[in-house]
Amino acid sequence: MNQKIEQLRLKAAELTRHTHELGIPVMIVFEGVPASGKTRLTNELLLTLDAKYSHFIATKPPSDFDLRYQFLQNFWNTLPSKGHINIYFRSWYSHFIDYRVHELKKSIFQNSTVMTEAIQNFEDMLMADQHEIIKFYIEINEEKRQEHIEQMKANPLTNWKAQEYEQFIPKAQYEAMMSELMDDSFKVIDYTHRAAAIEQMYRYLIKRLEKAIDNYEKRERVIDGQFTPGFTTTRFQKPETKIKKSEYDALVEELQLRLRELQFALYERKIPLVLVYEGMDAAGKGGNIKRVRELLDPTGYAVTAISAPTDVELNHHYLWRFATVMPKSGHISIFDRSWYGRVLVERVEGFASQDEWSRAYDEINAFEKMWTDEGAIVLKFFLSLDKEEQLKRFKAREEDKNKQWKITDEDWRNREKWDLYVEASDDMIEKTNTSYAPWLVVPADHKKTARIQVLKYIIKKCEAKLWGVKDY
Amino acid sequence: MNQKIEQLRLKAAELTRHTHELGIPVMIVFEGVPASGKTRLTNELLLTLDAKYSHFIATKPPSDFDLRYQFLQNFWNTLPSKGHINIYFRSWYSHFIDYRVHELKKSIFQNSTVMTEAIQNFEDMLMADQHEIIKFYIEINEEKRQEHIEQMKANPLTNWKAQEYEQFIPKAQYEAMMSELMDDSFKVIDYTHRAAAIEQMYRYLIKRLEKAIDNYEKRERVIDGQFTPGFTTTRFQKPETKIKKSEYDALVEELQLRLRELQFALYERKIPLVLVYEGMDAAGKGGNIKRVRELLDPTGYAVTAISAPTDVELNHHYLWRFATVMPKSGHISIFDRSWYGRVLVERVEGFASQDEWSRAYDEINAFEKMWTDEGAIVLKFFLSLDKEEQLKRFKAREEDKNKQWKITDEDWRNREKWDLYVEASDDMIEKTNTSYAPWLVVPADHKKTARIQVLKYIIKKCEAKLWGVKDY
Repeated sequence: MNQKIEQLRLKAAELTRHTHELGIPVMIVFEGVPASGKTRLTNELLLTLDAKYSHFIATKPPSDFDLRYQFLQNFWNTLPSKGHINIYFRSWYSHFIDYRVHELKKSIFQNSTVMTEAIQNFEDMLMADQHEIIKFYIEINEEKRQEHIEQMKANPLTNWKAQEYEQFIPKAQYEAMMSELMDDSFKVIDYTHRAAAIEQMYRYLIKRLEKAIDNYEKRERVIDGQFTPGFTTTRFQKPETKIKKSEYDALVEELQLRLRELQFALYERKIPLVLVYEGMDAAGKGGNIKRVRELLDPTGYAVTAISAPTDVELNHHYLWRFATVMPKSGHISIFDRSWYGRVLVERVEGFASQDEWSRAYDEINAFEKMWTDEGAIVLKFFLSLDKEEQLKRFKAREEDKNKQWKITDEDWRNREKWDLYVEASDDMIEKTNTSYAPWLVVPADHKKTARIQVLKYIIKKCEAKLWGVKDY
Repeated sequence: MNQKIEQLRLKAAELTRHTHELGIPVMIVFEGVPASGKTRLTNELLLTLDAKYSHFIATKPPSDFDLRYQFLQNFWNTLPSKGHINIYFRSWYSHFIDYRVHELKKSIFQNSTVMTEAIQNFEDMLMADQHEIIKFYIEINEEKRQEHIEQMKANPLTNWKAQEYEQFIPKAQYEAMMSELMDDSFKVIDYTHRAAAIEQMYRYLIKRLEKAIDNYEKRERVIDGQFTPGFTTTRFQKPETKIKKSEYDALVEELQLRLRELQFALYERKIPLVLVYEGMDAAGKGGNIKRVRELLDPTGYAVTAISAPTDVELNHHYLWRFATVMPKSGHISIFDRSWYGRVLVERVEGFASQDEWSRAYDEINAFEKMWTDEGAIVLKFFLSLDKEEQLKRFKAREEDKNKQWKITDEDWRNREKWDLYVEASDDMIEKTNTSYAPWLVVPADHKKTARIQVLKYIIKKCEAKLWGVKDY
């Protein structure tokens, strides 16, 4: 038998070297009751894989700290990069069961479909992006299982570990919930006979990896820079009334003080707030954000200004670098450009294929819903600028020695593609303007007016969420 | 006054754009009692800096989770990358005081010099690597301070925040301990008059940044590939007696079972274990590690196999990528190659300057001591191979289709520099063979013997630590 298993190991090792070279991220899930053999099976697999690109992710019962984040936060944070392999010892399925059995975040998860929908969307968007998700459910004969537990108990050095098994979710409950959750995407393996289980695991793994490689090699990645003409720019209007200079200073401060109060109220009520800024170059995103944050307590907010992705970011799912900086409960995350880059710059410049950016609208809607479903406020601002006004601002920047650094050749190149960016923005707003994460298109030709409009809008939305004002 | 401050802001912004371009990491520390004005001063500074490369790090009182890691773990994890700026709202100094006042990890930190030494070494090694560390201590007139607290209390939305101030370390205690810790590397700023405080902050910051830029431009980075001849290779001897094949299988399993027991014992006693492997190519590190981990519980150990650094890693202090994967209490981290790359491949290939690798011995000793001082076991193995034996193994790898991937052109190139690698290894072992983190040089010409030797050694050292056996 060792000979046969050794051949399977070599084959699995070879295939994972191949998925590594191709850059396919692989996620291998192991579920099963405690003492079912998951430990020994995952270690067997780990020993076969190259430690350079394989990772063991143990899913623990959620701590108080975990509860401050979105349900899938830890799985977002630890997503495998291209060509890497994650082995999940218990996974988002056990995580779901932990939440249900211990009634965690009860008020939010009264209806468990919030979580199952998040799981479904999470898996779907990863699979759409070539992630290979392979799921095992390990079973074992109860007699064998008890034997193993007794063995642990008998040894004074491992006795505490056996006791830990018993603190786990009751076996019957885990099994019942898993059988509800599992569909045929799970491969069930009986660990009662170790050698047979190992053999089954490898055979299934090999089959899946071969298929993944085959699919990968067959896939077509069409970069399509062609767009249909005839779009409308009706969204992008000039402001009807401009705020007067004499009113501005006092009004800004009044609104900022109110927002600061609301920051503390959100913190106390543990409501996270996400503010997303998009818009044309020189539309005044930076200055607008500055007015929003100016009187906030810096221990409770963070600004993420998006630059071109690093190598490490490029090697992950495109949402990874945003998911890792989403706010915990009661905190505020402000994004100066965001995941919408997928359907703006990546679409226009051809960094994403047509298939990739086309499905990104649904992915982004699902992504934002994961946070709003758990009580977060997500507000999105599109600062819309007139083409002539942009030219004026570009020139003014070039002439001001303290602003020259803001204007680069890239800005001028983007400007040449103005119409394409407007069309992409138009599509974006239409397809991602959801009830739970709405867009506010802000005419930004007059900066001060735009700032007041955004401040007022944030305040209104926060008040509505905090105290249930009707129009929310 | 606004005019003057605005000029200082512009100057500070300009200088930080310059440190960003040069790649200088900047760390700005703010200490001071609660309600001293730290919040408002740090936010003022944040608004001046470019959000693309500035980060706000709030130091919280240590949680149970934090206590499972090395004292400075969170500061290691969040080190700024090249050209980035970290603003610390409370820092490792407050962290130290939290540990002292609340008697955290009391048994380990009976003597507070363990922590002050860690802080000193941490700062020293960062500064040696061009990190600019700027420290502010904020003072305020007590009357003004109480005014601010009363203001927070009066507002129902911020009242809880004022209460939080009072849960902080008693003011007098904080001040007394800070005055002991502070040397003239701190700039004291009185926040009683806001405008004056802001002005002082910027003036000091500007002075320091100008100096940092000046030093950076003056520094010389000598890459010196020349080595003195005449080293000895006496360390690298062949094993005297080889283990017999007939004894090997049973003995390995016996030792592995013992090591598994010890893993659980270390976990229960919360002792972290670090195993570092270095050695010539094809010396059998991978196979050796495999025997060590084979029966371990994968939820409690991780193998980090070091490849060439990513862009993100290259943009950080060289110890960063290792510090972030050091074990938490009771866990085992196994490194297949390690931070010793600094004084091996980086020295030989000229990736590090002579100054950089020369001071790395002390830095590495200080780094390892940070963990052993807190109770970790750090064991280091150098698998030493005969040059002829390496050739034999290279050729064997080339002929085995399952091992071909292991042998690359780089391995052959490294082999050409055999003598340089032996000399670097020799220096390394001599200069980093400390009492708290010793090297074991393992003759690796006979793989099975080397595996048994390592297993026995780990077991002996763990038993000694666990139960205080004499020879430890």
